Amino acid sequence: MHPLLTHITEQINITETEFAQSLEYFEQVHFKKKALVIRADELVDRQFFVLKGCLRSYLLDDQEREHTVQFAIENWWVSDFTAYFTGAKSILYVECLENCVLLSIHKSTLERLYKEVPTLEKFFRRKLENAFVSFQKRIISNLYKTAEERYQEFITNYPNIEQRVRNYQIASYLGITPESLSRIRKMSMNG
Amino acid sequence: MHPLLTHITEQINITETEFAQSLEYFEQVHFKKKALVIRADELVDRQFFVLKGCLRSYLLDDQEREHTVQFAIENWWVSDFTAYFTGAKSILYVECLENCVLLSIHKSTLERLYKEVPTLEKFFRRKLENAFVSFQKRIISNLYKTAEERYQEFITNYPNIEQRVRNYQIASYLGITPESLSRIRKMSMNG
Repeated sequence: MHPLLTHITEQINITETEFAQSLEYFEQVHFKKKALVIRADELVDRQFFVLKGCLRSYLLDDQEREHTVQFAIENWWVSDFTAYFTGAKSILYVECLENCVLLSIHKSTLERLYKEVPTLEKFFRRKLENAFVSFQKRIISNLYKTAEERYQEFITNYPNIEQRVRNYQIASYLGITPESLSRIRKMSMNG
Repeated sequence: MHPLLTHITEQINITETEFAQSLEYFEQVHFKKKALVIRADELVDRQFFVLKGCLRSYLLDDQEREHTVQFAIENWWVSDFTAYFTGAKSILYVECLENCVLLSIHKSTLERLYKEVPTLEKFFRRKLENAFVSFQKRIISNLYKTAEERYQEFITNYPNIEQRVRNYQIASYLGITPESLSRIRKMSMNG
């Protein structure tokens, strides 16, 4: 079964015909490791479904320090969604950490697809609800959980990702230093 | 104009007739100051639009400390949306900080309303997109902004709310102590 079909049917019912119709609206794109799928300060009219590979979205602050906002692996969606939803310019970079194969869809194409396969509007609403839930969880964790607890949540959310990304990237996702992350890892291996 | 109509037309086009139809699906409910609209460990099948009043959602950690997740004033929506979306039990309390008048809608009623006035499905998708944007902003702020900067963002997001809520509640939203909040406020008044 196509990975996107598997992914969609986790949320909604869709017929094989509807899925085949839908798939035609997506474009398969290839990016090399280290390529930037999105740069800061651009308009963003596409979102991407990951067929293969691993990506990271991050922002650069005034001191050019990187802050990791999201990772994406197979069956995740990635974009600068704030820019995508609002029409404002992007603040994020989306970088390929490996060679990547993505399915790309344009915002206006997706609107047309909703008309042809209305059930997909429900699918994307569900995805937004799930994002709401995971964002709220991350905000709550930031309010009062320890770095150790947040690290444990991270490896639950992103199973098997640790081998695919660099330590400083995980540290910057958690808002801690790479040294703190190493200490936490040692503790959790001994614990 | 009805405040809910004003609020909806900021996002989508809706006719007076469609709005009148929609309004019948909502129930107007009154809560006294200090009443709990939602308690932790319950099923949540309603969301609320604030006609009048001020509310706060918070969670209690293992040490019974309160952590403020959201405030809501006129024209905001409030619920434990994680519980509402997923069907899991609530982890939040939603408390009235003033006497409140709310419009309440049941999840299954809203699904029926979508069928009658389909444009509202788009409206609620837009609201979710906006929530996504503001959550992501808050996560990014937590990653690298100072408490001062996060306080400034708070008063931009919730204008005029400071007179309506208590200092420790704002502090617990920002994840800082009430003492730090007082210091930041003094600095920002002198600055």
